[in-house]
Amino acid sequence: MASIKCFSASCWTILVARRISPSTFTPSLLGSVPNSQVITKALLHQDVTAPSCSVDQKKNFLLKTPKGTHDVDPKQMTIREKVFSIILKSFKRHGAEGIDTPVFELKETLTGKYGEDSKLIYDLKDQGGEQLSLRYDLTVPFARYLAMNKISHIKRYQISKVYRRDNPGRGRYREFYQCDFDIAGHYDPLLPDAECLKIMYEILSELELGGFLIKVNDRRLLYGILATCGVPDDKFRTVSTVIDKMDKISWDKVRREMIEEKDLSPEIVDRLGEYIRLNGGLAVLEHLCNDSLVSQNTMAMEALSDLKLLHSYLEIFGVADKVTFDLGLARGLDYYTGVIYEAVLLRGPEEPHNVPDNDTDKIAGFGSIAAGGRYDDLVGMFDSKGRKVPCVGISIGIERILSMAERKAEESFKNIRTTETQVLVASAQPHYLEERMRLITALWSSGIKAEMLHKKNPKLLSQLQYCEKTGIPLVAIIGEQELRDGVVKLRDVTTREEVNIPREDLIKEIQKRTS
Amino acid sequence: MASIKCFSASCWTILVARRISPSTFTPSLLGSVPNSQVITKALLHQDVTAPSCSVDQKKNFLLKTPKGTHDVDPKQMTIREKVFSIILKSFKRHGAEGIDTPVFELKETLTGKYGEDSKLIYDLKDQGGEQLSLRYDLTVPFARYLAMNKISHIKRYQISKVYRRDNPGRGRYREFYQCDFDIAGHYDPLLPDAECLKIMYEILSELELGGFLIKVNDRRLLYGILATCGVPDDKFRTVSTVIDKMDKISWDKVRREMIEEKDLSPEIVDRLGEYIRLNGGLAVLEHLCNDSLVSQNTMAMEALSDLKLLHSYLEIFGVADKVTFDLGLARGLDYYTGVIYEAVLLRGPEEPHNVPDNDTDKIAGFGSIAAGGRYDDLVGMFDSKGRKVPCVGISIGIERILSMAERKAEESFKNIRTTETQVLVASAQPHYLEERMRLITALWSSGIKAEMLHKKNPKLLSQLQYCEKTGIPLVAIIGEQELRDGVVKLRDVTTREEVNIPREDLIKEIQKRTS
Repeated sequence: MASIKCFSASCWTILVARRISPSTFTPSLLGSVPNSQVITKALLHQDVTAPSCSVDQKKNFLLKTPKGTHDVDPKQMTIREKVFSIILKSFKRHGAEGIDTPVFELKETLTGKYGEDSKLIYDLKDQGGEQLSLRYDLTVPFARYLAMNKISHIKRYQISKVYRRDNPGRGRYREFYQCDFDIAGHYDPLLPDAECLKIMYEILSELELGGFLIKVNDRRLLYGILATCGVPDDKFRTVSTVIDKMDKISWDKVRREMIEEKDLSPEIVDRLGEYIRLNGGLAVLEHLCNDSLVSQNTMAMEALSDLKLLHSYLEIFGVADKVTFDLGLARGLDYYTGVIYEAVLLRGPEEPHNVPDNDTDKIAGFGSIAAGGRYDDLVGMFDSKGRKVPCVGISIGIERILSMAERKAEESFKNIRTTETQVLVASAQPHYLEERMRLITALWSSGIKAEMLHKKNPKLLSQLQYCEKTGIPLVAIIGEQELRDGVVKLRDVTTREEVNIPREDLIKEIQKRTS
Repeated sequence: MASIKCFSASCWTILVARRISPSTFTPSLLGSVPNSQVITKALLHQDVTAPSCSVDQKKNFLLKTPKGTHDVDPKQMTIREKVFSIILKSFKRHGAEGIDTPVFELKETLTGKYGEDSKLIYDLKDQGGEQLSLRYDLTVPFARYLAMNKISHIKRYQISKVYRRDNPGRGRYREFYQCDFDIAGHYDPLLPDAECLKIMYEILSELELGGFLIKVNDRRLLYGILATCGVPDDKFRTVSTVIDKMDKISWDKVRREMIEEKDLSPEIVDRLGEYIRLNGGLAVLEHLCNDSLVSQNTMAMEALSDLKLLHSYLEIFGVADKVTFDLGLARGLDYYTGVIYEAVLLRGPEEPHNVPDNDTDKIAGFGSIAAGGRYDDLVGMFDSKGRKVPCVGISIGIERILSMAERKAEESFKNIRTTETQVLVASAQPHYLEERMRLITALWSSGIKAEMLHKKNPKLLSQLQYCEKTGIPLVAIIGEQELRDGVVKLRDVTTREEVNIPREDLIKEIQKRTS
């Protein structure tokens, strides 16, 4: 740190202040000695450009954002706003209410909810009082909120940042947005689950990111199959973590890891492999229902019956064509208890709408962009009486979508507008600052988005160039003649056409042209 | 912490897993023994309602948000969205671009920027790597962003949360939103400053919070007066901190603190008191210009000349009537170098629009709701070549405004709507679940905001009650007769009037009625 290797700015301030003794540097002299003013300014504002320290300080000072985080520039913000607006519109179309929770929670609120990933949680320094951690997702704070406020049913959305000390990579950050929609409450089976998948489908379609696929499984089915194949129950979690890698590494590697690292017999792994590599439509569910081993497992059969009901609802919602049942989907988080799902993008810009059964070869290589599932026990973990509130939800992982949308935008429109300014108030002559200010005041008070250059006498050329650079479509020009005639010269930046508009009609004309 | 005093959930899982030996609890049995399933479920989902641990765990578990933070419920969110939308509209009306920065910064980025308040910064635990702190405001990250990206001019807004370990109190939180607008770049004097004050004025007017007052001062004027009165320059900062208390405690107390704690002579303090208790319009500036002491201080005279120019601009912008020059305004932050300002609400619901000179008695007692100023040296502190980018900005402190708006909303409309749902799809008869799902799918795909109850066979009464409770204005009812006739019965929830609408006209009818 700069402040250790070299004097800190305030250290330096004190040194300078001492070097100048009160006798030679009395306050009453301050006004008349320009040099001392400079020193005082430096002193007062901790100006680190001052000599003795600046070089070292500068060298040691790291100008960056923390690892795995990034700033969002105006162009990215513009795209982000559009993406958020599509997501929010869908959430609201389904009657969701918004809530907000703090960025940090008591550490114990997050304890025991994320399995092996708990090591990725950011802890705050204990500065006298509570042990705090940055939220890891929006689901656990939501469950805490429900239990704390004794809410037994709600359809809520939340769009906020979450924090994970993961290894940063392509589209993977340590700080990232999640857009969550959840339905809490006792309802008839699979109806809320189907609506969640419908929303996921709507959003991914409306974002126009290309082909996508929603993989669906059920924790009960997965664990039922693990049990059926002879995996000891204390290895369910750790084996699931390996299963989750199947979309990244080959089955051979997954198989080896299960045998060598998880200590499963080759027979068990091979039996398991027959099941967890299955994926496809309704036929897969039927196949499993008739399987001699699986059909003996009550938990698995419950899940299969639920998935079939879910499929019938998804058909009515017009979503089934994008859904594939994938027995190898495990999802890392501890809290899921039923249906789980994950959306992935398909490779290539022009994917067919229908996903063929048993074909996940076309999945693009950067992981899921949306996921979720049912978690019926999480709220109960926070409730003093263990009272359960069944929940199901989705979480849209916005960063990967954004980086795709940004790439797309980069290609289509090089000069994406980052402001919404409708008109620049300009003058071709000097000494019209006050007139420009008067005109812009009138425009602002009518709700017109207007700018003027913060120069007393800007050149007309630089005013026009500003419009071209920032995409402002209109210029309202005033000068001696216009003021005398009570008009404003309205210029279309693209066509360069200029028309004199009576001052009283200007606002209507601007509104008309930019609506 | 619960996990120390009692077994943690995962600890308990392992214990249970060991107690049940593989011989008596083989996986293949799992499907047929209901009891073991319950145990497995608990085991898999870390169900802490399980016997041995639950009671203690529950007792020790604190269900709360961290000190000084709070959840935002759907009603508050609805008001918040309205407030944000007004603020954002004003920012965009003035041509601002949006940016976003991470919630934490490298600790050294924040070091030496906040004076005595630095102790309120939240630090993160060093988890191998960087020393991080939660942002204290949006200004320092903005300056870091400008320096890092070598941006020399920008008009930007940012609406984000900031973090201060302050003592929580009425409308004062440790996590709170700031809505910032800043203009960076070399421009003609006081033009950007005037626009900032114009925006502050617009937003506070449009929020309709009642009367308000914008206090304006200049750091150079304040320090010039301190020098003029004989305050030693190494005490400028600490004396300013005391001056800043003048809006909370009486002059007598401020005077005593300056003499007893800051070690100033009573003569100096009394001389100072003559100046810093001055406030009012242009006359105050004229008075100081003619003051025999102040007129000798170049820095103070520069500031006075700037404030006069600022006043002339504010008059054109129609803002001057809410502005008072207040020589006792100091502002705590280190980085200000010129004009500073702060907006306060006036007491009483019906304040006059014009604020009389020398009258700040009516200021409501809960501090500023918006503030800002000029900081010309901050970006240079981050730049490797010390290259300066002059900046000026405002920050709207939203929490106090929100708590006021919420109180107001509470009084006016008891039943504020938290969703935007236009229609509930319902049925009076059982067995119409699939038909409801078909109809709602059609509505959603036309962009209609629609809900249905997640019940197979809900009663009509409970469907109507849901509408009344949540404010949904329309119900689309289907049953045997309606399906046969190809119509939907559209019910107005308020008037209870019902009309049969041909199915093909339904979307248009809903849009018409809810537009």
